[in-house]
Order: sequence, then structure tokens, then C-alpha cells
Amino acid sequence: MIDLHSVIRTIPDFPKKGIMFRDITTLFKDYRALSSVADALTSEITDMGINKVAGIDARGFVFGGMMAQALQAGFVPIRKKGKLPSDVYSETYDLEYGTDCLEIHKDAIIEGEKVLLHDDLLATGGTAAAAARLIEQCGGEIVRISFIIELPELNGRQKLEKYDVRSLISFEGG
Amino acid sequence: MIDLHSVIRTIPDFPKKGIMFRDITTLFKDYRALSSVADALTSEITDMGINKVAGIDARGFVFGGMMAQALQAGFVPIRKKGKLPSDVYSETYDLEYGTDCLEIHKDAIIEGEKVLLHDDLLATGGTAAAAARLIEQCGGEIVRISFIIELPELNGRQKLEKYDVRSLISFEGG
Repeated sequence: MIDLHSVIRTIPDFPKKGIMFRDITTLFKDYRALSSVADALTSEITDMGINKVAGIDARGFVFGGMMAQALQAGFVPIRKKGKLPSDVYSETYDLEYGTDCLEIHKDAIIEGEKVLLHDDLLATGGTAAAAARLIEQCGGEIVRISFIIELPELNGRQKLEKYDVRSLISFEGG
Repeated sequence: MIDLHSVIRTIPDFPKKGIMFRDITTLFKDYRALSSVADALTSEITDMGINKVAGIDARGFVFGGMMAQALQAGFVPIRKKGKLPSDVYSETYDLEYGTDCLEIHKDAIIEGEKVLLHDDLLATGGTAAAAARLIEQCGGEIVRISFIIELPELNGRQKLEKYDVRSLISFEGG
């Protein structure tokens, strides 16, 4: 696979002082990198019988759609509060300051379906853990949680320890 | 192609009374529909030399990524204000009540690149027109604007008349 360090840009002090923001838009805009990452995210799992790929609003939608297509699965958007028009389950989770809320359509996943959850970045794991709870409320079985980037110093895997968690690249000093 | 009317759900009175919301999450979750639409969006244009596919935050990211991959192009997210970490161009545009703002990274598109702009829905055209101006500020040439759904009663094509605008399905009573 392509060297991901070379296509992910680091922006210091975004969105606030002290944060080193890992910017994957530089990966998205590079066709070879986009294609290489799409392949890496799905190549070993085409035989796992995945029914749905769930992507987290909004950066998780970019590869989420591609992964669904590659796996011949449906795509399920997990969205910020108030964006989904039909009946939803909601999960509120803690941020460093305050809380946030994610939602899923109740009929997005059928009881027993195998689900791959995807987001671009694993930091503290709070967002992905909330998304995983939503999938389970629908009756879905989470077969893997797949990230592009992981910031291991933030221990996000602790919140996701009952799942098969994968990431393509780690950055220290997260 | 699959009958899109059968996979797009209509939700009355969302996000407010009197709006018939066309919900494409039911299309996203149906693998055959997802694959059929991805093919329809890109099948005739693989020889147009498109360098970048730009998708509008957030529903435009799902097929935007797939289209980029199919066209061997890079993907460029056009985002709501404050989400992109590096230097941006910004465009403010009118909504029915108030205004909204979209942004693009200044270095997302190189002068002279051919760009396909994608969003899920053409309503009044204000959002797509703002996105088109952002692409042109970067020096990109917009070769097509491609939607899944069009609401012709809202006359969105008027705001986009200098572009090649396509949609896969129209709904009356938008």
C-alpha cells in the first residue's frame, strides 16, 4: 500500500490550540491514495458476508460508500442529531467539553445482519462506541470497526474492547 | 437501471411542515440500488478526463467517493463552515430563512483541472451554485453537475444554467 504518512497532512492547533489535526482531505484528493486505501479497507473481508457498512457523519461517508460497493453491502449513514427524517435511535456521548448525539434509522439494519462500522479516525473512541450501540439497538452484529487513522495515546481501543478494531495507520502525539 | 421511485422514501413534513422530504437512505441501504446508481452516475463519463469529483457535505460524500474511485479521480469535500482545517475559500448563500456557508480547501483543485460536482438533491440550486463558485475560485473547470434527485418545480436549473446539469430522477410536488 501507498505510504499513508506522505498523503495525510498535519495541521497544528486545529480546531483549537494544542491539537495536531490529521487531515485526510490530502489523501482523498490523491486518486492513487484513495484507491489504495479503499482496497486496503476491504481486501481481506470480502468473504465475511457483511450485509451493511455503517459510516459516521461526515468523513466516514467517503470510504463508507466505497466499502459498501466493494463488499456488495448496503450503506447506512450514522448522523448527527436531527438529520435523519424517519424514526431513529439516538445515543448521546461525552466530549471533552459537553456532549454530542448520533442517530440511526431504526429500519436501517435488520436483526442479525452483519455490520462493518467505519470512521476516518479513532481518537478517544467515544463516537465509535456510540455508533456501535446504535447498530446493536437495531439488532445488527458488528463484525469489525475499521478506521483509517488511529491515535493510540488516546486509548480509544479501551472503549471498543469487545470489537475487532482495525486501523491502517497510527500517529503518535495525537 | 433500477426503478428509483421504489427505493426513495418520502417523509411528509420534514424538516418542517409542508416539505415532502425525499429520503435516499433507503436507496443507500439497498445494495442493488446503490450499485446501480453508482454505475448510472459514471458510466458515460469515464472518457471525459475528470481529475476531481467534488461532493457536498454530507450526503454528497457517499456517491462522491464512489464516483471518484470509478473515474480514477481524486475526491474533494465541500464542507460546512469551520470543518476544513487548512486555508479555505468561503461562499455564503441565501436559504429560505437566513444564510449558510460552504468552504473548500484552496489547494483542493489545481488550476485547469476538470471537476465533476455531485450532490444528492437539486432543489433551489443555491447550495450547488455556491459550491460551483468555490470550485471556480480554485481554478477548476466544472464539466458536469450531477444529482440523484431533482425537484423541477423549484427551478434549481436557473441558478446553474451555464453548467451541464444532470439528474437521475425527478419528483413533482417538491
